[in-house]
Amino acid sequence: MELLKEKILNEGKVIDGRILKVDNFLNHQIDINLFNQMGREFKKRFENDKVDKILTIESSGIGIACITAQYFNVPVVFAKKTQSSNITSQVYETMVHSFTKEIDYRVFVSKEFIKEGEKILVIDDFLAHGEASLGLIDIIKQAGADLAGVGIVIEKDFQGGRQKLEDAGAKLQSLAIIKSMKDGEIIFA
Amino acid sequence: MELLKEKILNEGKVIDGRILKVDNFLNHQIDINLFNQMGREFKKRFENDKVDKILTIESSGIGIACITAQYFNVPVVFAKKTQSSNITSQVYETMVHSFTKEIDYRVFVSKEFIKEGEKILVIDDFLAHGEASLGLIDIIKQAGADLAGVGIVIEKDFQGGRQKLEDAGAKLQSLAIIKSMKDGEIIFA
Repeated sequence: MELLKEKILNEGKVIDGRILKVDNFLNHQIDINLFNQMGREFKKRFENDKVDKILTIESSGIGIACITAQYFNVPVVFAKKTQSSNITSQVYETMVHSFTKEIDYRVFVSKEFIKEGEKILVIDDFLAHGEASLGLIDIIKQAGADLAGVGIVIEKDFQGGRQKLEDAGAKLQSLAIIKSMKDGEIIFA
Repeated sequence: MELLKEKILNEGKVIDGRILKVDNFLNHQIDINLFNQMGREFKKRFENDKVDKILTIESSGIGIACITAQYFNVPVVFAKKTQSSNITSQVYETMVHSFTKEIDYRVFVSKEFIKEGEKILVIDDFLAHGEASLGLIDIIKQAGADLAGVGIVIEKDFQGGRQKLEDAGAKLQSLAIIKSMKDGEIIFA
């Protein structure tokens, strides 16, 4: 998606050759016009996949998941990372490893919000090692639901997430794929 | 807002007479059609307030902030609760007390995303004791920006947040105001 690539080139900053800082428009400040164009693009790419629901993970997936859901006319469910006192129902849970923060964290979804046989589209802001998306796919499997696909805003191709998701049988669509960020220079696939 | 009140009555659950569980449509699963109607309603209520930007707090404010921002055609900024390795810039920060979780947590916004003189609309899912909104107002003040107002989806009137926000000079608009939840019965103001 050309507009997104331009934004990444103009406003993204590479840290340590592996982290791409795009908090100017994606995950701290949010460019809503860009998000709308991305939502329409996801709709185009998963148009024939009969999506019943969009699943994402807090926090930075929520915005793009909500904007995208408008084009599919389906609800969003976001997986949570911390148990709050108003989650009383039974949950599906899984562990996710964050390479950025070097921690493992628990992720869960209330059982009532993903049902057997539903077709679930996973939407997230980044794909790097694929751990977060794999965690969501695990939850979908536990629920007996079907994976419609995985839609990613920015994929960092060199961190191996694509292979893992394709091995898990996912149809993967990324709006921008970065092949390399060596020496701070962003090169798209 | 009648549709919202109906949803609360039909799908909300009261826990311990003080917590309202609405994760069926507001903060775990998200009803996007309802969110669009709420976004339009916020636009109506703050139409003349010359909003430059919407500020919310992760996680459950992000969805409604993004949907609402479309009607104002402005960016969203969400305050973060945990420092991640890709936040390298200087931040405005404040402490927020959570009565639900009985903890204090740090909230911050990168300085580059709120500028002096900007008119900022705070949007959040709940108003109870008002701590989260007051934290965001503190950040707006630190930045030398102006508060356009505070838009809340569900206000729990009996927990005192309104008084604190009005004392801080905020124009407060809530889409549903709950006067009492005694014995599990929800009564609107």
